[in-house]
Amino acid sequence: MTPPFLDLPQRGGKPRQRGLTHVIDRGLSLAEVDGMLEVAGDAVDIVKLGWGTAVVTQNLGVKLARYREHDIPVVLGGTLTELAISQRRVDELVGWLRELGIGHVEISDGTITLPHSEKLALIERLAGEFTVLSEVGSKDDTRIMAPYVWVEQIERELEAGAWKVIAEARESGTAGIYRADGEVRMGLIDEIAHAIAPERLLFEAPQKEQQVWFVQRFGLDVNLGNIAPQDVLSLETLRLGLRSDTVPPAQPDERPAAPERTQR
Amino acid sequence: MTPPFLDLPQRGGKPRQRGLTHVIDRGLSLAEVDGMLEVAGDAVDIVKLGWGTAVVTQNLGVKLARYREHDIPVVLGGTLTELAISQRRVDELVGWLRELGIGHVEISDGTITLPHSEKLALIERLAGEFTVLSEVGSKDDTRIMAPYVWVEQIERELEAGAWKVIAEARESGTAGIYRADGEVRMGLIDEIAHAIAPERLLFEAPQKEQQVWFVQRFGLDVNLGNIAPQDVLSLETLRLGLRSDTVPPAQPDERPAAPERTQR
Amino acid sequence: MTPPFLDLPQRGGKPRQRGLTHVIDRGLSLAEVDGMLEVAGDAVDIVKLGWGTAVVTQNLGVKLARYREHDIPVVLGGTLTELAISQRRVDELVGWLRELGIGHVEISDGTITLPHSEKLALIERLAGEFTVLSEVGSKDDTRIMAPYVWVEQIERELEAGAWKVIAEARESGTAGIYRADGEVRMGLIDEIAHAIAPERLLFEAPQKEQQVWFVQRFGLDVNLGNIAPQDVLSLETLRLGLRSDTVPPAQPDERPAAPERTQR
Repeated sequence: MTPPFLDLPQRGGKPRQRGLTHVIDRGLSLAEVDGMLEVAGDAVDIVKLGWGTAVVTQNLGVKLARYREHDIPVVLGGTLTELAISQRRVDELVGWLRELGIGHVEISDGTITLPHSEKLALIERLAGEFTVLSEVGSKDDTRIMAPYVWVEQIERELEAGAWKVIAEARESGTAGIYRADGEVRMGLIDEIAHAIAPERLLFEAPQKEQQVWFVQRFGLDVNLGNIAPQDVLSLETLRLGLRSDTVPPAQPDERPAAPERTQR
Repeated sequence: MTPPFLDLPQRGGKPRQRGLTHVIDRGLSLAEVDGMLEVAGDAVDIVKLGWGTAVVTQNLGVKLARYREHDIPVVLGGTLTELAISQRRVDELVGWLRELGIGHVEISDGTITLPHSEKLALIERLAGEFTVLSEVGSKDDTRIMAPYVWVEQIERELEAGAWKVIAEARESGTAGIYRADGEVRMGLIDEIAHAIAPERLLFEAPQKEQQVWFVQRFGLDVNLGNIAPQDVLSLETLRLGLRSDTVPPAQPDERPAAPERTQR
Repeated sequence: MTPPFLDLPQRGGKPRQRGLTHVIDRGLSLAEVDGMLEVAGDAVDIVKLGWGTAVVTQNLGVKLARYREHDIPVVLGGTLTELAISQRRVDELVGWLRELGIGHVEISDGTITLPHSEKLALIERLAGEFTVLSEVGSKDDTRIMAPYVWVEQIERELEAGAWKVIAEARESGTAGIYRADGEVRMGLIDEIAHAIAPERLLFEAPQKEQQVWFVQRFGLDVNLGNIAPQDVLSLETLRLGLRSDTVPPAQPDERPAAPERTQR
């Protein structure tokens, strides 16, 4: 559609295995879902109904139907799975997911303490029926894990059948892979990426500066999660170098009189 | 509607006297009003058209009609009442409220300086015709009142006929009952709650961390105000323990192999 | 429509030459455009499709048509012009603007380094066909310009044919005319305003505190830019003294028993 007046990198189309944009729906109305799809539907790979909102939102059925019409998979928040574990109602959760026609499930332990062997057993069990996104890292910013523990947990969860492993941040973009001020724990990310192929990871990156950092570190095909609906288009421009923060430096052969990008 | 796969606390239905969610409408379109009601209308107890927006918004009539259809009371911002006081146009304001069919009024002195006796006289006068929400506390974070003054003012405003007394914060969640960084003045709240029944109070709590604090301190039936429309569903999950921040600890009899909630 | 129960200052109607509200559209859906116009369309003077979003958004054609129906001029983000300059595709950009029926263009150098003579030449060339908004100041907060350089550049860009010159801030409200924490560089603004008529300037002011500062400094008819769609109504109330931050002090002759505005 767009006249090719700029050289831009190529983005793969849906369904994607990498370059995923994982959107958090904190309680969208149907009109807001429609708006997001009208503006940037081609960039929405998966939608999470945040934490336990699915239990309370009054438009669940029609919203799930709308996402289904557009072939966008939906996953419920990991906190809901944790509540089901905590209340010994995993079978009931599974029954509800079947009833709702939801094919993805998030398995996390950001809120409760769960022996890793039990988490792996649950991943293995649910991976038989669902596409599993497991999540590593705590929402508790006083519970720091050494990088080798992150790597080990991620590897074992992938072996147990997880499709992708999510590197946790709070919805606000703190804790987990971020410091309390939202800054990326770069050393941690380096160690994880040294051991595990980035396309198996999905980094939660709700803040723009975090998205910029990951696009610059891993390229346009990095998998990013907890993206606000109103930021999907912005993230797409960050991937493509259409926003100041990720505009590529001018090529040397374009220079003599041509402009040079400022350092930042 | 929701399959009972989790044990959740009970929320009372509308119209409520406690557990109120008081929403601030900073200029919603009709479609946004409809979206909020579609998603979480059962949790919207009262809507404030923030500060003087009612005078300028181009969709006032149709918006008021929409809220009326859904039996949601509307109140105009206290700043508007203060302007009417300051310009000696209280009668004209009352006439306008009648014309608009608005049955609630907010009486505050966060912006102007008003002798407390005059404020009480106005509460008493308007309480004859309107449901009065009076507000205590200044938007000016250099004007600190001692806790006993808060208590005395709140008690006298209730005696004068206020339905609820609002404990002031700025829309950004600072000043009044918060420090400049948004942190709750806990000692102040303790002194107020020691003297006055919490169901007579409505705490302005626009930020999530503030909502978490009040739900943990007073339980799910605390009255909270200045809630952004897009946060109504989130607040409902906080009340019900469906979001990480307020998930209840696991019960002892559920434990042996079962998970335990992390400390935070 | 509004009953005249308050004394309010007069705002000029559209099309305006001063008192402009320049809105940033980061990716609105049609329903969101309609909502903004329903609520505060009379206050929307010009809309910018932020940075390179126009290239990616999937609803470009219908959205441009909608703005056109409402006689609201649209301008694409300056970053897009900078990319065209950088890739030597200015002619192609101009062709695309013609095709889209867009009559305004932003010429900036916030991201790339561009000799000022080249920028002036481009302003002069495009001013023949388009209404040019040129922008002074960098998104790079380490690239500080002395006030006299700001003045000189602005004067020469106006001479070259710019309709208004935009004083740059990042979309987040930092860099350019602001410090890293968003505070206004007041001395810089004073020097600029001493030399250049404020109606020729458009100050980017995305944050409320910045809008308050400019309205208090220059009055209700200051031109402000990068206003979020959901803040247009709030800005209008700030201009008119209907929000606490800009409520005018009570008049002396109104006082005896009447209230006095608190200091802030």
